[in-house]
Amino acid sequence: MPELELKAVKCILPVMQAVDVSLGVRSYRIWIGRGLLERIGQECAGIGLGRKCAVITDTNVGRLYAESVCGSLRNAGFDPVVVEIRAGEASKSLRTAEDCYEKLVKAGLDRKSFIVALGGGVVGDLGGFVAATYMRGIKYVQVPTSLLAQVDSSVGGKVAVNLKQGKNLVGAFYQPVLVICDVGTLVTLPEREYISGLAEVIKYGVIADSRFFTELELHFSELSSRHLGVLEEVITRCCQIKADVVSRDETESGLRQILNFGHTIGHAIEAVYGYGRFLHGEAVAIGMVGATYLSTKICGLPESERERIVNLLKSVDLPVSIRITQRRREKILQAMKVDKKAQGGEIKFVLAKRIGEVVWGQTVRDQEINMALDAISA
Amino acid sequence: MPELELKAVKCILPVMQAVDVSLGVRSYRIWIGRGLLERIGQECAGIGLGRKCAVITDTNVGRLYAESVCGSLRNAGFDPVVVEIRAGEASKSLRTAEDCYEKLVKAGLDRKSFIVALGGGVVGDLGGFVAATYMRGIKYVQVPTSLLAQVDSSVGGKVAVNLKQGKNLVGAFYQPVLVICDVGTLVTLPEREYISGLAEVIKYGVIADSRFFTELELHFSELSSRHLGVLEEVITRCCQIKADVVSRDETESGLRQILNFGHTIGHAIEAVYGYGRFLHGEAVAIGMVGATYLSTKICGLPESERERIVNLLKSVDLPVSIRITQRRREKILQAMKVDKKAQGGEIKFVLAKRIGEVVWGQTVRDQEINMALDAISA
Repeated sequence: MPELELKAVKCILPVMQAVDVSLGVRSYRIWIGRGLLERIGQECAGIGLGRKCAVITDTNVGRLYAESVCGSLRNAGFDPVVVEIRAGEASKSLRTAEDCYEKLVKAGLDRKSFIVALGGGVVGDLGGFVAATYMRGIKYVQVPTSLLAQVDSSVGGKVAVNLKQGKNLVGAFYQPVLVICDVGTLVTLPEREYISGLAEVIKYGVIADSRFFTELELHFSELSSRHLGVLEEVITRCCQIKADVVSRDETESGLRQILNFGHTIGHAIEAVYGYGRFLHGEAVAIGMVGATYLSTKICGLPESERERIVNLLKSVDLPVSIRITQRRREKILQAMKVDKKAQGGEIKFVLAKRIGEVVWGQTVRDQEINMALDAISA
Repeated sequence: MPELELKAVKCILPVMQAVDVSLGVRSYRIWIGRGLLERIGQECAGIGLGRKCAVITDTNVGRLYAESVCGSLRNAGFDPVVVEIRAGEASKSLRTAEDCYEKLVKAGLDRKSFIVALGGGVVGDLGGFVAATYMRGIKYVQVPTSLLAQVDSSVGGKVAVNLKQGKNLVGAFYQPVLVICDVGTLVTLPEREYISGLAEVIKYGVIADSRFFTELELHFSELSSRHLGVLEEVITRCCQIKADVVSRDETESGLRQILNFGHTIGHAIEAVYGYGRFLHGEAVAIGMVGATYLSTKICGLPESERERIVNLLKSVDLPVSIRITQRRREKILQAMKVDKKAQGGEIKFVLAKRIGEVVWGQTVRDQEINMALDAISA
């Protein structure tokens, strides 16, 4: 029975899908699937990287996966060293970057060596920044282990660290040479962090694909229960959308701004309430509710579609409102004006005309923003 | 008498020469001449930069030139703020970069703003690094005020800060949008620093242009006395050579390595004797003597040409030897092995076949390096 045999073989091979990011000489592939951590060595060997490498990871993720990743790298002939940073946003600092550089020098990494960033958004952003700047730039591989990182931060080459005055104020556009998303790592993710990542997933439906948005509405319960097959499809679609946007506008001079839907208010909430009080995706979810409200007022988004967006966020247990005191309201406005995306103090928004289509660079007056803040007030 | 009138007009116009660095969308122009500090505003306006800018300078140069540069910028409609760092190599650190970032945020610089790096190599490398990484990269203008910076570090987009473990270990390839070399600023340069810059000038003759080398031999006394007309010609030629090399190999994957002639031993001397003990050009001069010796042994450089190189260095008062104890000799060898240009512990040299033609990537055995160290021992 040849058919059965074929199936048996299929089960041994990892299930994986490829998405290509087309950026000329800086093009690279994203692999999405299960059992991929064990294949990292092979994949790195396939693209011709130097022998020596550093696996930058954090105390949480390193404990779970560093050994298997290093094993895979060693089996493929690489010589990995582990550089572990403390888990948490506080590590996205120049200080931690300096620690990493010094460890790379000590381990003998040269210009031909490469970095594997194994972890969530913090590790990816920091590890990528270290790769972008160590010896004026060495290659790096993103191995995102959080939902947020798999659908967003690990793709597109935005790397950064924070300053006291704000997030991601120091960084670069520096593309990885490979991204490996093992959806199996999402099983170990804390519930709140997992749900937070769903905010970015829903964002992709709103900004670029109404059919995908409908799929999410239909399958929200499988998503909530982390059905790996569904997750694989969903993450692949998110990466396709992001890859397409990034290929057309690498350095965010235009189109790429649509990826910031919900982020103008979201970033301000994170800054004003203190990083850590809200997870990034939670702040973005609330920000999307605000942007959706503005979209109905300014861009003609139908009220029914606004409701669908808010309902989908609610159905996966994302927050859609927040308590805002008068003092915080002023601080939120202020924070939006110092955002990287602000220009000459003017606050720019991404707004939706309908689910699946957005416009960027929309100037919104303080009065309207205040109404949006009313709309998200608990 | 129209001819006389024309001459009068000519005297008011600054004397300047242009060299173009061709790097596709990252192409830019280098202006070399006198009285250019007062023209910075105009030149910046000509390439369409944002209104807000920061003039990063140091305590020495800022005192002399910051006000006139800011005046020129203001006259052209820009809104400059001065960010002053302490003069000296110690400022080429992540700590100083962090200070700069924080001042840029406070001054309200956004993604459309730009940086003017006004100073020598330290200011150029640090200012360029800050520009490369602030908000993931903003534009910057190099205004080199030292000979070394005018002929070398301000052109080509190599920007960096130092780590405890070595110089320029953290940085990027990030091109300026404009370089303005006002040779008038060289008049105020301390004698030792000026002479140090001549080492890089002589280097260009050795690596790329035997006729230029002969010109330097003929005009060494005008060079030593800082004849501005001669300096303008000499700096223009150096910039042409560097622009040509950089245009053909932006990220030093091959040809660009020839710019490191004399730097393998030079960098090691700087590292082992402590930065500041020898100025960069002094260490490079000694390094060139070592490389020249190796060139006669390995690449067939005629003995007569070796003598010409050493004599030209001597004639402008550059050092050509150094006291090396046995302990330092070992440290120098060690330092060469951790150099960014080393690969897998192998030390790579740029060596001369004759004056005007070099080869790069030459592996040299420890035994031969030891002989070269003998050759430079006082």
